Amino acid sequence: MSDIAEGRMSFSLSYGDCDMVGIAYFDIYYRWMERTYTGWLYSHGLRSGQIREDLGVLIAGVSSGCDYHAPATVFDELTCQAGLARMSTSSYRIEFGFTRDDQPITTGQMTFACRTPEWAKAPVPDRLAELLGTLPVRQVSV
Amino acid sequence: MSDIAEGRMSFSLSYGDCDMVGIAYFDIYYRWMERTYTGWLYSHGLRSGQIREDLGVLIAGVSSGCDYHAPATVFDELTCQAGLARMSTSSYRIEFGFTRDDQPITTGQMTFACRTPEWAKAPVPDRLAELLGTLPVRQVSV
Amino acid sequence: MSDIAEGRMSFSLSYGDCDMVGIAYFDIYYRWMERTYTGWLYSHGLRSGQIREDLGVLIAGVSSGCDYHAPATVFDELTCQAGLARMSTSSYRIEFGFTRDDQPITTGQMTFACRTPEWAKAPVPDRLAELLGTLPVRQVSV
Amino acid sequence: MSDIAEGRMSFSLSYGDCDMVGIAYFDIYYRWMERTYTGWLYSHGLRSGQIREDLGVLIAGVSSGCDYHAPATVFDELTCQAGLARMSTSSYRIEFGFTRDDQPITTGQMTFACRTPEWAKAPVPDRLAELLGTLPVRQVSV
Repeated sequence: MSDIAEGRMSFSLSYGDCDMVGIAYFDIYYRWMERTYTGWLYSHGLRSGQIREDLGVLIAGVSSGCDYHAPATVFDELTCQAGLARMSTSSYRIEFGFTRDDQPITTGQMTFACRTPEWAKAPVPDRLAELLGTLPVRQVSV
Repeated sequence: MSDIAEGRMSFSLSYGDCDMVGIAYFDIYYRWMERTYTGWLYSHGLRSGQIREDLGVLIAGVSSGCDYHAPATVFDELTCQAGLARMSTSSYRIEFGFTRDDQPITTGQMTFACRTPEWAKAPVPDRLAELLGTLPVRQVSV
Repeated sequence: MSDIAEGRMSFSLSYGDCDMVGIAYFDIYYRWMERTYTGWLYSHGLRSGQIREDLGVLIAGVSSGCDYHAPATVFDELTCQAGLARMSTSSYRIEFGFTRDDQPITTGQMTFACRTPEWAKAPVPDRLAELLGTLPVRQVSV
Repeated sequence: MSDIAEGRMSFSLSYGDCDMVGIAYFDIYYRWMERTYTGWLYSHGLRSGQIREDLGVLIAGVSSGCDYHAPATVFDELTCQAGLARMSTSSYRIEFGFTRDDQPITTGQMTFACRTPEWAKAPVPDRLAELLGTLPVRQVSV
């Protein structure tokens, strides 16, 4: 089910992902979101750590968040699907749907803003905007 | 400046907290939020992993989030101050203000809901509600 | 190349795996070792967190270690292959060879000891010993 | 008990440090070792990520390891004390003793080698060697 070029990654929860109560620790979703998002960009030739060099703008993370719908536990197989939740001229929000057997577990989001090196608002670069447009459109709940 | 009994913790960013771009990785704030929140509860005699045994209700994390205001880098000294952002009969939201020299860096939140073992809404236990009431009242922006 | 049933897992390094210097942070190998080892056990029907219930002995981690041969950076694809480095009557050591395009990057190890609930030495349970015997035999360098 | 200028740091274990079995996850010691070591260097004016710029040599991590003596659990207060376990002309090993109420919990080590930019062996820079000499001398067991 993993197809990183489509913004999708599957993984199994390990002991290191889970806390004493036996469920996935609340912050592990953020790390998988980053892995999915930057892996997806990379699969299309963009390195999120080099956007300034490659596309001439800074892209700053302005917010992140998760809604937890159901707990997950060690060895559960989760799929994380990135979607485009919002795009304006200078910012965009990616939603991440984590599911287990197609049941929603967690919905996350990361929001980014484009800035000039002088920190003024900058438009989302065309190449990036076009790529973002290929993601499924999602309604984010966070 | 650390005084965990007042919901406050100070710490220095380590290399392990920072990413390739040289700034604090976006998910490290979540781990410090948990450390501050559960450490604060513990300093008042409550273990968040044993709330059911101690207070008779389940407390589920329903959402978390961060707004990133300014970047922080390795060896920066940050202070995390917990505050009460919202309390209803069966849920509450803790806000976390991360500052460096009193300048805002990141504002985070964790929202919890109280449930019976059968997963019906349950009131926030009196002992916990009273303790939450001792936190500074904050307006959360996430 | 991933085949967890043979103790092998492949993964790409994310930004969260790398530090400010741009290379994989030294502790991330440990998390991938655990993921590979416990995932391999699980693929053969054993949950490392339930060994006492399932096999009647405690298995304690007594040491871990890594030798770093060459740096790895973000988006590198690494393969982690578990091997059996040593087995005595009451303990065993798993070696983990991390490679990139078959070049050695890091060699890790985890050593476990079997104990009775009273903490006396206990033999490695037959079922586990048999399973360990299916791993490739490795010479660990740590 | 924390005095980072003497290579010592105290901390409480959080839920995020502990695994499903309820004890400190085996890799968390590595992160505290780095925090103690680089914080100690920084308290003496050295940034481990800028050693090349500041002292003219590369310092590569060549190995790390931990011996686990006794388990620790959430809210335990641990102290990590760095010591000098070995120093040769071009490499050195730092030992880290983790204790709880002066009882040994875990002993860790990190070993570093000095290299020229062309990756030949280089002597440990005088300033660093002198600083390392101020750490307590330890016998490492890993």
